[in-house]
Amino acid sequence: MEISELGEFGLIRRLTECLKIENPTTLKGVGDDCAVLSPTEGTQTLVTTDLLMEGVHFDLMYVPLKHLGYKAVMVNLSDIYAMNGIPRQITVSLAVSKKFTVEDIEQLYDGMKLACEKHHVDIVGGDTTSSLTGLAISITAIGEALPADIAYRNGAKETDLICVSGNLGASYMGLQLLEREKAVYLSQVDKSDEKTTNNSSTINIFQPDFSGYEYLLERQLKPEARRDIIEALAKANIRPTSMMDISDGLSSELLHICSQSQVGCRVYEDRIPLDYQTAAMAEEMNLNVTTCALNGGEDYELLFTVPLSQNDAVNKLEDVRVIGYITNESLGKVLICRDGSEFELKAQGWNPLQ
Amino acid sequence: MEISELGEFGLIRRLTECLKIENPTTLKGVGDDCAVLSPTEGTQTLVTTDLLMEGVHFDLMYVPLKHLGYKAVMVNLSDIYAMNGIPRQITVSLAVSKKFTVEDIEQLYDGMKLACEKHHVDIVGGDTTSSLTGLAISITAIGEALPADIAYRNGAKETDLICVSGNLGASYMGLQLLEREKAVYLSQVDKSDEKTTNNSSTINIFQPDFSGYEYLLERQLKPEARRDIIEALAKANIRPTSMMDISDGLSSELLHICSQSQVGCRVYEDRIPLDYQTAAMAEEMNLNVTTCALNGGEDYELLFTVPLSQNDAVNKLEDVRVIGYITNESLGKVLICRDGSEFELKAQGWNPLQ
Repeated sequence: MEISELGEFGLIRRLTECLKIENPTTLKGVGDDCAVLSPTEGTQTLVTTDLLMEGVHFDLMYVPLKHLGYKAVMVNLSDIYAMNGIPRQITVSLAVSKKFTVEDIEQLYDGMKLACEKHHVDIVGGDTTSSLTGLAISITAIGEALPADIAYRNGAKETDLICVSGNLGASYMGLQLLEREKAVYLSQVDKSDEKTTNNSSTINIFQPDFSGYEYLLERQLKPEARRDIIEALAKANIRPTSMMDISDGLSSELLHICSQSQVGCRVYEDRIPLDYQTAAMAEEMNLNVTTCALNGGEDYELLFTVPLSQNDAVNKLEDVRVIGYITNESLGKVLICRDGSEFELKAQGWNPLQ
Repeated sequence: MEISELGEFGLIRRLTECLKIENPTTLKGVGDDCAVLSPTEGTQTLVTTDLLMEGVHFDLMYVPLKHLGYKAVMVNLSDIYAMNGIPRQITVSLAVSKKFTVEDIEQLYDGMKLACEKHHVDIVGGDTTSSLTGLAISITAIGEALPADIAYRNGAKETDLICVSGNLGASYMGLQLLEREKAVYLSQVDKSDEKTTNNSSTINIFQPDFSGYEYLLERQLKPEARRDIIEALAKANIRPTSMMDISDGLSSELLHICSQSQVGCRVYEDRIPLDYQTAAMAEEMNLNVTTCALNGGEDYELLFTVPLSQNDAVNKLEDVRVIGYITNESLGKVLICRDGSEFELKAQGWNPLQ
């Protein structure tokens, strides 16, 4: 069905008519000039936002729309968790070009709803409009936390332990794999001399077999925000002194924490958590796996620091690894390699403006 | 300066380094995963968001970037006022293509800052990224209100008076004027056989003389969200039973209030407030001025209903006019023309998806 058949209000109605409200703090959702929220007394409100553009942040040739919706929500929820907070609501703004049907947008929205249900988050509003080219998605997430629990980037102190959840570099390797298969597919299409389908109206046209690398694809296409880590930290009574989610790459995020906390750090290469598939794919592609883990980005794992006194407690946490410690600023930001050599950490993460 | 010279973090730093925080409820602004807000106890939080796409919502051939920034903020603040709330914070997400320089984005941001300063609003975060084509702007505004003060769309009751602030149709006439001058300019460029500049890299290339119609242009390019009306209502102790801002046109908004409140309405053509310049330009362009006022949109005036008992109080308000009253749903939504004839109100406002 053409989106213009429904019009703006018809499309909004169709997308939002079965939205459930899960949070008692959501007083009014979609359908007025604003959503109305009422934070629990004593808590503080967290707000984060993100703008994703087709061709820059995602390639619809290999990203299914449902996955895209899921991921677009997850990356925002991840920012709320990265403050040690709990997400409660999101708003969703979409700009769509004529190549998209109503069913396409419903798929996108289905992915968003799935992510929200999983994290008990309410969709409370947004904007739906058109675009001349491609798809734009802007999501704002609102969360809450007790003032004393909020973990900023500027709280890391000398001797604090540096911790990372999950493993790093898998999402980046998943992207490399998708890009490689896309190139193979396009060259075949080219050779077969058929009309090329590599144009802007292409949505999900190829479905190669990725068996053996499902985990890498899942990390790239369907990342999970680490609510479980936030809950585990709370249960273990651990308050991170600083925290960020890893979206641009471990190096880049660690440098942010160091510069905002005015500290240095020492990180051990052999402590950086890697999945087997990440290592195997890096070897297959002749890439340095540590570089991928340091700079790959889109991991949406949590990077945080805890006081040295929490060493035992943090070592008991499942899926969390201590990768180094915080030092005096004058000692710099150092990576200690497997052979004992030391390098200055540099941010080579993804820069959307280059 | 090319934006890529600064990079994402460089650009963010440059745009945000002199942001002042005005609201004590803004605990942390730009610079972490989330902003941290702490609503005043007893109030509720309002959230609204908007996504503006180049070529759909604005034409950089005649919209100066500073004005665009100003307007992009105003339309969101207008939504907070339309709930009878006070805006406190915004987040700003931008996607920019390579045709924009750092100075361009600074101009855009200057307009945003000006709007924020005027309304005592803090910029507390956002996202800055690239786009393949054109500019996308997504703004989320956060406000607060006392629970009993919030004006939803569904509260209009039979016999309530329908009120409108300011005057209608001026912004639409301003747009018509800009479009006409653009067409004239382009045909001249065409005729002079120079290389045409009508391409996507065009920003603000023509500056025709609009003397006599400054007001129309100001309404289109630099609309003002009606904080003054909200303050006047509070001062006069008037609580609107329903309220919306007029962004898609009076007809469209009135139909929203009627359908959500399950009521009908009677609106008098001769009561619809018009500015002299709007009427003059409509005549010059051979347009029906009432149609422009009903369906033009982008007025960002407030449409609200008050109990009949508030008739005297509302008539004393400056720049507010009663244009009709609410009826039983069975009586329909009716426009009474100057000659006494009656028509059903229809939404012919701007539809971004057609």
